[in-house]
Amino acid sequence: MAGNLYRNVGLKTAFRWLSPLKAASSVAKTLSPGFSGGLLQTPRPASSGVRCQELHAGGRSPTQSPSAAPERGTFSRVTPEDLAFFRELLPGRTITDPDLLEACNVDWLKSVKGSGEVLLKPKTTEEVSQILRYCNRGNLAVTPQGGNTGLVGGSVPVYDEIVLSTALMNNVLNFDSASGILSCQAGCVLESLSVYLEDRDYIMPLDLGAKGSCHIGGNVATNAGGLRLLRYGSLRGTVLGLEVVLADGRVLDCLTALRKDNTGYDLKQLFIGSEGTLGVITAVTILCPRKPKAVNVAFLGCESFEQLLQTFQRCRGMLGEILSAFEFLDRDCMRLLNTHLKLANPITDCPFYIVIETSGSNPTHDEEKLHQFLEETMRSSLVTDGTVATEESKIKALWSLRERVTEALTHDGFTYKYDISLPVERIYQLVTDMREHLGDRAKSVVGYGHVGDGNLHLNITSPAKDPALLASIEPFIYEWTARFRGSISAEHGLGLKKRNYIYYSKSNMAVDLMGSIKILLDPKGILNPYKTLPDDLQ
Amino acid sequence: MAGNLYRNVGLKTAFRWLSPLKAASSVAKTLSPGFSGGLLQTPRPASSGVRCQELHAGGRSPTQSPSAAPERGTFSRVTPEDLAFFRELLPGRTITDPDLLEACNVDWLKSVKGSGEVLLKPKTTEEVSQILRYCNRGNLAVTPQGGNTGLVGGSVPVYDEIVLSTALMNNVLNFDSASGILSCQAGCVLESLSVYLEDRDYIMPLDLGAKGSCHIGGNVATNAGGLRLLRYGSLRGTVLGLEVVLADGRVLDCLTALRKDNTGYDLKQLFIGSEGTLGVITAVTILCPRKPKAVNVAFLGCESFEQLLQTFQRCRGMLGEILSAFEFLDRDCMRLLNTHLKLANPITDCPFYIVIETSGSNPTHDEEKLHQFLEETMRSSLVTDGTVATEESKIKALWSLRERVTEALTHDGFTYKYDISLPVERIYQLVTDMREHLGDRAKSVVGYGHVGDGNLHLNITSPAKDPALLASIEPFIYEWTARFRGSISAEHGLGLKKRNYIYYSKSNMAVDLMGSIKILLDPKGILNPYKTLPDDLQ
Repeated sequence: MAGNLYRNVGLKTAFRWLSPLKAASSVAKTLSPGFSGGLLQTPRPASSGVRCQELHAGGRSPTQSPSAAPERGTFSRVTPEDLAFFRELLPGRTITDPDLLEACNVDWLKSVKGSGEVLLKPKTTEEVSQILRYCNRGNLAVTPQGGNTGLVGGSVPVYDEIVLSTALMNNVLNFDSASGILSCQAGCVLESLSVYLEDRDYIMPLDLGAKGSCHIGGNVATNAGGLRLLRYGSLRGTVLGLEVVLADGRVLDCLTALRKDNTGYDLKQLFIGSEGTLGVITAVTILCPRKPKAVNVAFLGCESFEQLLQTFQRCRGMLGEILSAFEFLDRDCMRLLNTHLKLANPITDCPFYIVIETSGSNPTHDEEKLHQFLEETMRSSLVTDGTVATEESKIKALWSLRERVTEALTHDGFTYKYDISLPVERIYQLVTDMREHLGDRAKSVVGYGHVGDGNLHLNITSPAKDPALLASIEPFIYEWTARFRGSISAEHGLGLKKRNYIYYSKSNMAVDLMGSIKILLDPKGILNPYKTLPDDLQ
Repeated sequence: MAGNLYRNVGLKTAFRWLSPLKAASSVAKTLSPGFSGGLLQTPRPASSGVRCQELHAGGRSPTQSPSAAPERGTFSRVTPEDLAFFRELLPGRTITDPDLLEACNVDWLKSVKGSGEVLLKPKTTEEVSQILRYCNRGNLAVTPQGGNTGLVGGSVPVYDEIVLSTALMNNVLNFDSASGILSCQAGCVLESLSVYLEDRDYIMPLDLGAKGSCHIGGNVATNAGGLRLLRYGSLRGTVLGLEVVLADGRVLDCLTALRKDNTGYDLKQLFIGSEGTLGVITAVTILCPRKPKAVNVAFLGCESFEQLLQTFQRCRGMLGEILSAFEFLDRDCMRLLNTHLKLANPITDCPFYIVIETSGSNPTHDEEKLHQFLEETMRSSLVTDGTVATEESKIKALWSLRERVTEALTHDGFTYKYDISLPVERIYQLVTDMREHLGDRAKSVVGYGHVGDGNLHLNITSPAKDPALLASIEPFIYEWTARFRGSISAEHGLGLKKRNYIYYSKSNMAVDLMGSIKILLDPKGILNPYKTLPDDLQ
């Protein structure tokens, strides 16, 4: 899968950027003062004093891509003394064998690759604390890593950062079956937690394609969205507590298990979505919903996106509280599923397909609601064809049409991936405009995603890496998104790949404040360097 | 209402603390270093290096209550030049008439009273920005004020702080009926927004007893909980965007209207629940749920709290996604409602009463679910009696039994109010233990609250202010709460009254980090001084 996109870079060589991203655009530097607040004593590098529209006005050499890695920071290199310390602290769990390091140095898209020489596998918060205290003193950079399933190059080293893996921190700490509050270590795999909870009549409030590999700590660190957000809300509401080890090794214990706590600032929110740049999440408490007694999935076809949106409105009204997902894919996605994965279209050919899921407490009521809704939408010709599944195997088959689009894309060629958030009525217009804009320069331009959340996954393929095509896509796509106050990263985060595009979705002031918070919590910048923050604040 | 608790303090006299709170306990100071991070250059006052259990070990004079106001900060006093500036900026909206200042200087419980001499009523964000820029330069302290309905003394001046009211910032900015995302100025009254949305087939995701007065900006600044949290989650999930004016007058625009946005740290979370100490919220975008097509309310009686909890479990299973509230009050609450407000008990006398609300999209389904649930709980003797309402007037009557307990208490005598969050199975044990602990020293010890959120409102009355009684309540109640990792303020916040009790629910490190964030965002400390942060960090 995507093997053709991957250039093997020898270990211990310098980092090389393998991403297809490369743009003529660049980040302009100006003299606008950074956010200083009360603590800033020494001048910080001036922030990029430009807004989205001006991002490409000049400054850095136009041959350098804004997503290319910056120069290596002035971090120390790992010495034999350092290794001796780690080996004593983590006997058998300090990995330096190049073969074993391979997997943690490359992201799952195989689009970025680092040269980390040490992989540490702590089991306890205390061990994480000792590692970071040591690294902070010694000025050693650290990349925290969960399941390494991120899509923006946030979870692998860029140069020789030490990889701190949460893989062995996989214990459930507590589960309160009265309240549905789960407390666990950060390295628990999402699917394992789901299985654990299903036995206890609960489910996790989030579900992702990567559930078999991703860690809950990584989910929280990246503020993962996924398929259930429409129903159960974001992790900002469902995560009740966190334990975090800060850059200097101190343990910040906010691991409460309460639905309500208004005693001061909600510090844990700083770490949700900070991609490991502010601290290492070591434990999580999360509020879990009851396992629904009935789940139904409908797969429908629509003639236009306008009709799809009308179907969504009617669906919200008629299915109301049992609606748990409203996803879509377009005809081109279906074509890729047919061609590359041999998945058959269960209904007649249409420009748009919808996956609707209901989850409820009364199977009879849910079926009745769903049938009433389907009858009405068919009668009013909002949808042209459809099929419904109530059995688990059939439900899985329908869901796979939505979930396996990513996989189908990897077989179609070199893929340029975008994860855009927009007012819901705008989301497909971007695909149409992009298709028109690119003409026959792209092999496929496909759109799918979470209609209920206004989240579009726009993917563009070409037979091979194509800098000219990329130059046509960017900054076009970011400017288009910024025009409607959308987000250039709805759920994937910024990581390494998108850090310099932040100004399309955040004001200078907001970015400056982010920089000040980074300096407050990680003054030496050892935590996941080169990620999340734009280069002018690194 | 509560008029007997209110001592009239002449304007322009120094602030006087009228709260009943007074304890022999005090905050110990130690040499433990404060949270410094990377920016701290000068030593900060050492933080209170004690944990909950040790809070009362010594240090400050034992005659000084931890909730008493600290000394006035070294802020400037308002001069005629300042007034001239404000009058030019806000003609007719710069209030200095003592009669008109009365209401904004005292909280609605009439428990705290300040001596603010200026009330400013901006209409625009730009005006708020100019006010704060001016005040920050001139070192003038400012108390932001919404509907002034808080219960912890957070919304009124302590000394002569300038009151910055959001009362005239009451415009709806936008409503997207496709997504249910509302954008409005901070001064919109919650009930007005509810009315606005009802016409558009939506509702606000929060509902409070104070809805007729409270402002949405104040709701967000205090992270208000209320009656719908069980169903729609907290404001941390439903607030999508904020516009905030920082202490120095700069406008932080995070007013996006997107369900998903993972472009960097979620800065708006800093301001949710910070009680106006980090910035002044000027506009809010919030995700609103569809208006339910059917609402039912059941009022039930239980013989024991154990049975009440079992009823809750069964309720969650059987009503599932249509459950929108599960509230309780005890027999003593009912006695107060009967005695002081002449409200009749609609069912037979019981030790515990439950209010269950369902909200759903299909009236027939909802009634069926509710009746099945009621039948089963009656058959299994979990509840002993009950009544159900589907008409709006009857629904209101049943709800008033829960909502008017606060009012009934004010007629019972001097009230000591606590707002505690605990693991749900513990919440009533605290009431029982407190009753036993106080014996006949208290007039009434009553418990009510949000079972679904593990949130207990424990209230204790006495014929008059009673320092000896208070000394029996505190620190007993805080220690009890800390023992079970509860929160000493579930939804009311810390404000002035509870700021020094923070260590019962937050670690030293967390409080130190709060202090560093305060210094970063408001280095002169002009925003709502003496609130939220404990005195050792003021």
